[in-house]
Amino acid sequence: MRQIKEQIKRGVLNAGDRMPSSRELSAHLQISRNTVVYAYDWLLSDGFLETRARLGVFVSSSIPAGRPKRETVRPTDERVNRVHAASRMYALKSPEPFRPCQPDIRLFPLLIWNRLRGRALRTMGLNLLQYQAGCASGLPALRKVLAAYLRDRRGVNCDWKQVVVTSGSQQALFLITHLLLNAESKVYLENPGYLGARNAFLSVGAQLSPGRIDAEGLVLPAPTDHSFSLIYTTPSRQFPTGTCLSLARRLELVRFAEETDTWVIEDDYDSEFRYSAPPLQSLQGLDPAGKVIYVGTFSKTLFPSLRLGYVVLPESLVEPFTAIKGLADDFSPLIDQATLSLFLESGAFHTHVRRCRRAYSERQTLFLQEAKRLELPLRFEATDGGMNLTGYLPEGSDDEAWSGRCMDGGLDVPSLSSFSIGPCAPGLVFGFTAFDEASILNALHVLKSIFAAEGLGVDLPIA
Amino acid sequence: MRQIKEQIKRGVLNAGDRMPSSRELSAHLQISRNTVVYAYDWLLSDGFLETRARLGVFVSSSIPAGRPKRETVRPTDERVNRVHAASRMYALKSPEPFRPCQPDIRLFPLLIWNRLRGRALRTMGLNLLQYQAGCASGLPALRKVLAAYLRDRRGVNCDWKQVVVTSGSQQALFLITHLLLNAESKVYLENPGYLGARNAFLSVGAQLSPGRIDAEGLVLPAPTDHSFSLIYTTPSRQFPTGTCLSLARRLELVRFAEETDTWVIEDDYDSEFRYSAPPLQSLQGLDPAGKVIYVGTFSKTLFPSLRLGYVVLPESLVEPFTAIKGLADDFSPLIDQATLSLFLESGAFHTHVRRCRRAYSERQTLFLQEAKRLELPLRFEATDGGMNLTGYLPEGSDDEAWSGRCMDGGLDVPSLSSFSIGPCAPGLVFGFTAFDEASILNALHVLKSIFAAEGLGVDLPIA
Repeated sequence: MRQIKEQIKRGVLNAGDRMPSSRELSAHLQISRNTVVYAYDWLLSDGFLETRARLGVFVSSSIPAGRPKRETVRPTDERVNRVHAASRMYALKSPEPFRPCQPDIRLFPLLIWNRLRGRALRTMGLNLLQYQAGCASGLPALRKVLAAYLRDRRGVNCDWKQVVVTSGSQQALFLITHLLLNAESKVYLENPGYLGARNAFLSVGAQLSPGRIDAEGLVLPAPTDHSFSLIYTTPSRQFPTGTCLSLARRLELVRFAEETDTWVIEDDYDSEFRYSAPPLQSLQGLDPAGKVIYVGTFSKTLFPSLRLGYVVLPESLVEPFTAIKGLADDFSPLIDQATLSLFLESGAFHTHVRRCRRAYSERQTLFLQEAKRLELPLRFEATDGGMNLTGYLPEGSDDEAWSGRCMDGGLDVPSLSSFSIGPCAPGLVFGFTAFDEASILNALHVLKSIFAAEGLGVDLPIA
Repeated sequence: MRQIKEQIKRGVLNAGDRMPSSRELSAHLQISRNTVVYAYDWLLSDGFLETRARLGVFVSSSIPAGRPKRETVRPTDERVNRVHAASRMYALKSPEPFRPCQPDIRLFPLLIWNRLRGRALRTMGLNLLQYQAGCASGLPALRKVLAAYLRDRRGVNCDWKQVVVTSGSQQALFLITHLLLNAESKVYLENPGYLGARNAFLSVGAQLSPGRIDAEGLVLPAPTDHSFSLIYTTPSRQFPTGTCLSLARRLELVRFAEETDTWVIEDDYDSEFRYSAPPLQSLQGLDPAGKVIYVGTFSKTLFPSLRLGYVVLPESLVEPFTAIKGLADDFSPLIDQATLSLFLESGAFHTHVRRCRRAYSERQTLFLQEAKRLELPLRFEATDGGMNLTGYLPEGSDDEAWSGRCMDGGLDVPSLSSFSIGPCAPGLVFGFTAFDEASILNALHVLKSIFAAEGLGVDLPIA
């Protein structure tokens, strides 16, 4: 059949040519006559061939003469077979130490999740499978339980109608960008900072103004600077440095936002993992003027491939954001949303987060102790939680080169400068949450040997 | 705790004020001392309060004086309770007759789907839950089985690396728009046509040139017109009229695309549902120049709330599209992708589509027979499949008004003009696939009574 189509397309067979009968062709090609009949049927229904009463089958007279000459159709059968074999060999990857921001998915209660998924399908019924025109902003049941959670645990000041479910926090950042920014916009953002946000802003050609991080977090623009459309910040735990935006600076920021009419994105990606105390209250909850857009994710607390996040919008943005979410992908998958709402409501979420918090806290302690014992040439600043630690290298070090040496040694340790616009203090970013004790200890020894190979490791001050 | 924060924010409590001891406050508020201790801990860790050795707890000295005055924090507890009650009452909707393009989700083999989901989790392992940096374009296993399916069943000419998984076909349309179009672009599109596409193009300010539909499908622009960036078409079954783009016109279109260097979107939303013959071969398979972007979806063949679709890209667009997909939402949920790949591979997909095809074909026949018997003032054109039928009203009818009357009668029947830019033949669009025999018969009788109430229904020619 492919051959016939090919010949028609290439002009070997032309409009009005008589085709051999199915009997002739099956004999000629030594294939079963049924196959030929089936192929002819297909080509007839596609309009390549036509029947003329009592005369047989002909190449369709509607085919224009002189077909495009370029040869682009390739033989596929062989490739199909090779591909099929290859698909069975493909393996999904788990993160290498010390890839930042990766939860330990072995801690995830998949059985409970699956059970709640079944319950969601039973209780919410088959309509969970339907197109739901009203669900561009997410399943109402999930938005309600999320709003209650965010009010109680994060001090977010919102009605459930301000909560919109997104396909991960990345989608929230992308859609906010397309809603609020264009090539004329200036964005003030943490530097070093989160690349997913920076790349989203760059995708509309916005100009970036990197803001310095000090001990109190992001240093704010001059109080009278009206030039920014948006400020991007991770106040609970600055990514990647781990600094917490101080209360004084938070209050300054919300006042700045109000007075200069500047939007603020509060990206609260891992505040659940604060080990010494309950999570910090959100910046959004301090905002008197409705300028803060709160963005959250379940990629860190549950699992990354779920692709569910959310945004809490100032009232003025709820409608436009919902509209662009609908344009972007209609809505996020409903069965997962229903499962998640039961997972939150049942308390399984809190149990799971508590369990992760305990494990991650122990891993952080272990990491820091061992790094100290090994006298690694890295200075770690105190942090009360999170998923990552920044190890500062001696001044003048080339952190990109060190990151490359780690990569060569099988470690996934990005440099601080890979998150920076322009020069910054050299450092390496270590995620410790996805790895068990043995992996952490082992990887730190590899790291030690990488430093030792370059003659570094004993003569530097450790914090 | 909220009260204390409120009082600090409003300036009732000021920096340096001494707070009552937990014992005093618990007695004053008649709440347990533990609650107060917990609240103080939280406020301390948030930085609202600070302790001074042996002196007690004070309002943090870092709090600037003179807080914003505006009152925006609202009492929430009452609302939490109300919302909680409401969330239990919220019901998801099933489509009303005759909402177009809705599959019958009661036919979906949910048990088999769930079983394959379990198998995917067992065989692909927990890494299916991880962040997969290489998965912006989708799970390789799914892309491979999809490519084989599209080559065999749809005549799509592609390597699996050209297949990118999207969150529904709407996302494909949105991302193509953001990749290829801007406010200077001109788009030639079917009129009447699919609103999801039109709205995506409008979201970047593209100018729309509506193209007429005749018996052979979309009428093409003048062969020398180089002004278009993109042509949007649903060649297998034009939405909503149901017309099929003829082979001659397909060949004309791919030649036009090559000669004028114009991109073409082939939106192949429901070609699986052709009742009399195998699906038509895709336009993409005829394209010698790599200008056709093929878009498909599982919203019609499986279920809409799954939110999985795909796009087959010309090689030059694979990288840029994958990049914007990554920016937009990293990747689509992996467990669903893995389940879908098994669903396709196991043959369950084909069995299900065959079953739906049979049911939908019967429903279409029933619909047309009953519409004829009831002498509805609608003219239906012959179509060999699909999910919808367009019933043309007598010339000069106001189809918007008729659609409104249907709505009042509980029927969801959009007008043809709601899909059109400018004037068009008046008509109503009927989806028949999501409804069983009884519902179809019942709804057609309601329709008859709506027409009868306006004195229409016997004096008009029926096709």
